[in-house]
Amino acid sequence: MTQLEAAKKGLVTDEMKIVATDEHLPVDQVREAVASGRAVIPCNRAHRAIHPVGVGRIFSTKINANLGRSTTTSGKGDELFKLDVALRAGADFVMDLSVGEDLRSIRQGMLDASPAPLGTVPVYETISRLKGDIPEMNPDLLLDVIREQAEQGVDFMTLHAGLLLRDIPKAMSRVMGIVSRGGAIMTEWMQKNHTENPLYANWDRVMDILAEHDVTVSLGDGLRSGCLADASDAAQFAELDVLGELVRRCRERGVQVMVEGPGHIPFNQIQMNMEREQEICEGAPFYVLGPVVTDIAPGYDHITSAIGATAAATYGASLLCYVTPAEHLGLPDADEVHRGVIAYKIAAHAGDVARGLPGARERDDKMAQARAAFDWKAQFEVSLDPECARKRWQKTRVCTGAEDDDHCSMCGKEFCAVRTSKRIREQTGSNAH
Amino acid sequence: MTQLEAAKKGLVTDEMKIVATDEHLPVDQVREAVASGRAVIPCNRAHRAIHPVGVGRIFSTKINANLGRSTTTSGKGDELFKLDVALRAGADFVMDLSVGEDLRSIRQGMLDASPAPLGTVPVYETISRLKGDIPEMNPDLLLDVIREQAEQGVDFMTLHAGLLLRDIPKAMSRVMGIVSRGGAIMTEWMQKNHTENPLYANWDRVMDILAEHDVTVSLGDGLRSGCLADASDAAQFAELDVLGELVRRCRERGVQVMVEGPGHIPFNQIQMNMEREQEICEGAPFYVLGPVVTDIAPGYDHITSAIGATAAATYGASLLCYVTPAEHLGLPDADEVHRGVIAYKIAAHAGDVARGLPGARERDDKMAQARAAFDWKAQFEVSLDPECARKRWQKTRVCTGAEDDDHCSMCGKEFCAVRTSKRIREQTGSNAH
Repeated sequence: MTQLEAAKKGLVTDEMKIVATDEHLPVDQVREAVASGRAVIPCNRAHRAIHPVGVGRIFSTKINANLGRSTTTSGKGDELFKLDVALRAGADFVMDLSVGEDLRSIRQGMLDASPAPLGTVPVYETISRLKGDIPEMNPDLLLDVIREQAEQGVDFMTLHAGLLLRDIPKAMSRVMGIVSRGGAIMTEWMQKNHTENPLYANWDRVMDILAEHDVTVSLGDGLRSGCLADASDAAQFAELDVLGELVRRCRERGVQVMVEGPGHIPFNQIQMNMEREQEICEGAPFYVLGPVVTDIAPGYDHITSAIGATAAATYGASLLCYVTPAEHLGLPDADEVHRGVIAYKIAAHAGDVARGLPGARERDDKMAQARAAFDWKAQFEVSLDPECARKRWQKTRVCTGAEDDDHCSMCGKEFCAVRTSKRIREQTGSNAH
Repeated sequence: MTQLEAAKKGLVTDEMKIVATDEHLPVDQVREAVASGRAVIPCNRAHRAIHPVGVGRIFSTKINANLGRSTTTSGKGDELFKLDVALRAGADFVMDLSVGEDLRSIRQGMLDASPAPLGTVPVYETISRLKGDIPEMNPDLLLDVIREQAEQGVDFMTLHAGLLLRDIPKAMSRVMGIVSRGGAIMTEWMQKNHTENPLYANWDRVMDILAEHDVTVSLGDGLRSGCLADASDAAQFAELDVLGELVRRCRERGVQVMVEGPGHIPFNQIQMNMEREQEICEGAPFYVLGPVVTDIAPGYDHITSAIGATAAATYGASLLCYVTPAEHLGLPDADEVHRGVIAYKIAAHAGDVARGLPGARERDDKMAQARAAFDWKAQFEVSLDPECARKRWQKTRVCTGAEDDDHCSMCGKEFCAVRTSKRIREQTGSNAH
């Protein structure tokens, strides 16, 4: 039985209990959200190391770190190291997007090492087995790969099932065309074989496999915009309508489902995009990549996209897929993975504060109190990246004293406003809240 | 005659012409915006190296880089080097916030080297002359410093004139109290001397000096919030009301004026803050610091604040004061200055795109076209930080070929979506826009 099937029958699973505890919510509220499809708990029982995590608007916003080798760079050891870096930095979900050789072994290594739910894009392995020969893909091979990965323990899978033959011309007239790896693969296959999307055409068979292993579908956005000029266009929204249809079919079949979203989107269009997805997909958790709010900053796309991700988390997203500083330039290394995760922890948390999620601001308030008290140790402890903060502070520390120095090198002792403010309070007998 | 006085009389100055050319606007529109106070052109004739820059919603959003030594760290050479770094990275404005010794010389060095308008906070020099003894400050000394700096060529000055005696208790009951250096100085002085804010009390005298040299006032927000818990509170808005009054007095006197704003603000309160300032200060250009949207990420406050700054630029700010990764931890070094400027160039540009500023998206579109064509050279040229982008791309380049490689190490050749998309287009005879 899937989490969705259990929830519909009124059953509370162990996974729901864990999520309820972690989120400080009554378990019935978790069960109801899962039953309605507004929340998912991607959790494959074959993934032994897993600690279940909930995705949905009633929970805190989660972040995903994409990992995985490319055909030209990196290998199993590198990717397992990056996995460790991502988890330590706070990634809630990870995806193994490896292509090329050695895929089953890399995936198994990640499943063994990751308490975070693990996702994949099965068409990558399918095409890897064909050495990149996309037109040669047999739909049965694709389904075999999905089954094998489900049996192996993958918790959620990105399936580009909503990109239909009829919508390809809409994408081809864009500036950037198709920028989704999976979307481009499906498109070339359909085009060469003059045949409908094999996932869409075989959706009942796909759902049977997923239901058996309780693999959560992440409906891929093969037609997400790859630049601001292509944002919120006919291609993107044509696919979204199909995703809405597939959400309904998944829910009827008892398969947990979330929906992936854009992409490159101007800041002012993000709220509209979030609301449109929520409406068309009837509240299915929205899993967004970025969005990137300007195209002109390669090397800094963790920032361009953390800006968009904060707006996305505020207005409707439940899971944020990180973008690293290497985006548009190369495969991220471990340091870039770290920086991507931290940027997204910021976005997720800022979004939670902005949407008024109960308890979200507590950590900020602890930091404020620690700052007012010059308690540097407490400041570092409550920091998203304690090591980074501590190192930077120590770099220009002037006094050799303990960690209760009452200023930093920015203003120095005489010009520290917090220090002056504290003195005024002491003089006037005012007390902080 | 100040730019404002000239504009009111219907006169077009050379500075207005330069701004009109740079902003691709008719000069009459620039003159009208200056006349109404909705735009300012900070430009002191004694600043020989200046290239005039306009601030206001009809122009592109500008960014400011804070520079200057603290009492414990850095010196003239360091700060001149940072100035060069900031200007090269694209800073439109710079402020010299130096405290301690050697202030006149540091400032002169910056004025000589900077085509960007230069701002200061005169109370810093005043208190530096008193070796940090705040209660000893004589209002006449503060006015003398303002006059000397105006004569020297400072283009705009932050004056914390809106923080009144009656509003101090509101600030003292906060979690973080006062976090503005200038605000804390004014407050301690008022408190110890039981006397009203010396800038407010002598505002006519202050304006006489500023008008003579056409120094633009930047009305300081001494009561800006220093943490989310203190955001948008009674103290902050009490000061804003006084700033509104001072804006009107400046405009009547012919003194150009902009208004500084918060601070630490949750993402969902930024739009309200921008709109409230615009209303109360009757469209005076809003110069915002960040805002920082979460308190928990020391070491990454260029990101926490670039998120807020993008929203600020979208909803009403005209000038964004950068925040560097060193914020809350120490005085920024040259690399941190660079990173702060780039983060803010992103925020300013993303905001301009979001608010539909004519022409803003052209650069993004050029990038999209270069990406679709695998024209790496063009991609780097249109990048905000070409050197960073090029270096990262070269790091994992697989082919030894020229700069027309049709993929990067992220996906490799077989899995590059843009490459696949290009192939599909060639097969189907589709053309990009």
